[in-house]
Amino acid sequence: MSYLVIIEFLAVIVCSIYGVLLAARKGMDVVGVFAVGFAVAFGGGTLRDLFLDRTPLFWIGNPHYPMITLAIAVLSGVILRFVKHIKPLLLVPDALGMALFTLVGTGYAIEAGANPFIACLLGTITGTFGGVVGDMICNEVPTLFTPSPLNATCSFTGSWIYWGMLHFELPQEWSLLVGLLVIVLFRLAAVKWNWCFPGIREPGGGA
Amino acid sequence: MSYLVIIEFLAVIVCSIYGVLLAARKGMDVVGVFAVGFAVAFGGGTLRDLFLDRTPLFWIGNPHYPMITLAIAVLSGVILRFVKHIKPLLLVPDALGMALFTLVGTGYAIEAGANPFIACLLGTITGTFGGVVGDMICNEVPTLFTPSPLNATCSFTGSWIYWGMLHFELPQEWSLLVGLLVIVLFRLAAVKWNWCFPGIREPGGGA
Amino acid sequence: MSYLVIIEFLAVIVCSIYGVLLAARKGMDVVGVFAVGFAVAFGGGTLRDLFLDRTPLFWIGNPHYPMITLAIAVLSGVILRFVKHIKPLLLVPDALGMALFTLVGTGYAIEAGANPFIACLLGTITGTFGGVVGDMICNEVPTLFTPSPLNATCSFTGSWIYWGMLHFELPQEWSLLVGLLVIVLFRLAAVKWNWCFPGIREPGGGA
Repeated sequence: MSYLVIIEFLAVIVCSIYGVLLAARKGMDVVGVFAVGFAVAFGGGTLRDLFLDRTPLFWIGNPHYPMITLAIAVLSGVILRFVKHIKPLLLVPDALGMALFTLVGTGYAIEAGANPFIACLLGTITGTFGGVVGDMICNEVPTLFTPSPLNATCSFTGSWIYWGMLHFELPQEWSLLVGLLVIVLFRLAAVKWNWCFPGIREPGGGA
Repeated sequence: MSYLVIIEFLAVIVCSIYGVLLAARKGMDVVGVFAVGFAVAFGGGTLRDLFLDRTPLFWIGNPHYPMITLAIAVLSGVILRFVKHIKPLLLVPDALGMALFTLVGTGYAIEAGANPFIACLLGTITGTFGGVVGDMICNEVPTLFTPSPLNATCSFTGSWIYWGMLHFELPQEWSLLVGLLVIVLFRLAAVKWNWCFPGIREPGGGA
Repeated sequence: MSYLVIIEFLAVIVCSIYGVLLAARKGMDVVGVFAVGFAVAFGGGTLRDLFLDRTPLFWIGNPHYPMITLAIAVLSGVILRFVKHIKPLLLVPDALGMALFTLVGTGYAIEAGANPFIACLLGTITGTFGGVVGDMICNEVPTLFTPSPLNATCSFTGSWIYWGMLHFELPQEWSLLVGLLVIVLFRLAAVKWNWCFPGIREPGGGA
């Protein structure tokens, strides 16, 4: 299943960049930037590995993964001095990182024999939990829980498509590619046109 | 030990309702409502299963559990339109959910051979951690940590009573029933008459 | 490897005191004080044990550890009535607790066969995660992530020194002692002379 390993490798790079940018924006120092990069890049996959009882954890079995995050954190201290606006840089790594980790998470859960609903749920957790931790560390209400452009929904949709294509015995590489495109494009569209679900009810509306 | 499974099933339903209500009150959308319901209903039990190294996790081995939470989250979007005040609805699911999960947690820890103090501690963690996560997501200081009506104390008391009754070889069903009543009534009384422990010292009192 | 067990025992005592003081300062009641003490003393080691798949968890296999925390929480309710300023009491338990848990974490990770970088990373996580949880519960932005006196850096440095001394086959007890002194003195100096890394860039500077 080597395609999943490639996707995982890319996911670590992309999510480390996302986490590092997020932390740099908040004025953190190099340790904080590494810590947030680490939490964003490894949070979701760590939960998945713990939940599925996979050992060793993917970043303990691949010690170069956290070293990549460290290198990105250190490099950012040089490169970001020449960058004026970080916010526009966040969009693509956010969508791409979520898509890559969602597919890895779904794939590993299927390998572990999980029921389809659980596999897609674990994929979504793997894809979105890093961002939730990043938001929490940066002391904001995680956007996952507020009426903001769809993210978990994009992730969950893409993981069902990936699961469905595998289920109908389409090849792994095509299933991954289609799943990836669906999640990234769905997410970018959701941000661009501000697609949100309405709140279940008005906040505080009569308490 | 099929009684524990029934209690667990009820606990999932009750805590999902509690989490969904909590999130709906905050004006979250259907994804946020499901996510909070999921975190409240499965947070404590997940910690317990990880701490005791029980595999598969209870909601991975019972995929219908998170489906129940999803159904409750979706239904709430319809039903809550006709409900004016959510706050009074929170009280009973809060007390009942904590009681049910405390007993399940204590029971599984005893099965796993834990020392009585650890079993009751794990029961209390199982019963209260979901609520802590719910509070944290909704961005409030978890009431577990502030001088507010007793909750962990009710949970811990009930789990010792349950453990004690089993220890004296009283039947499982009676031990569960008495433990349940003690926790629920103790908690409802604590809320009604505002039973609190005093703070260890004045906050900021001389820092 | 009985030296590690002694260090762990001391770490539990020191970190329980630190957590209890932290919570007492915030005006929490005895349950909150115990809960924070527990989270600070066991948070880091629990992550380490879960990440390395060590069973049983160190505080489940040593039920007297959480009992020590409980005793300290209860005693604090008596002793702290006679203490005027808690803040100056925090400094030493903070530095010492971090140092002790860092070394235990590094040592167990080496025993588990982890790569040196991962072993030192896990040591640092074991040493600092408890404090992060404590800060989060007390509703402050964890100092780990803000430009504040070095802590993770002290921890990481000391764990490399400990690893290096073991690597060159120096005796365990000397390696532990030197690692301990390095972390504690480095940390105390960092606080005293306010050694900070600069932020990667100005916070909000052009967003």
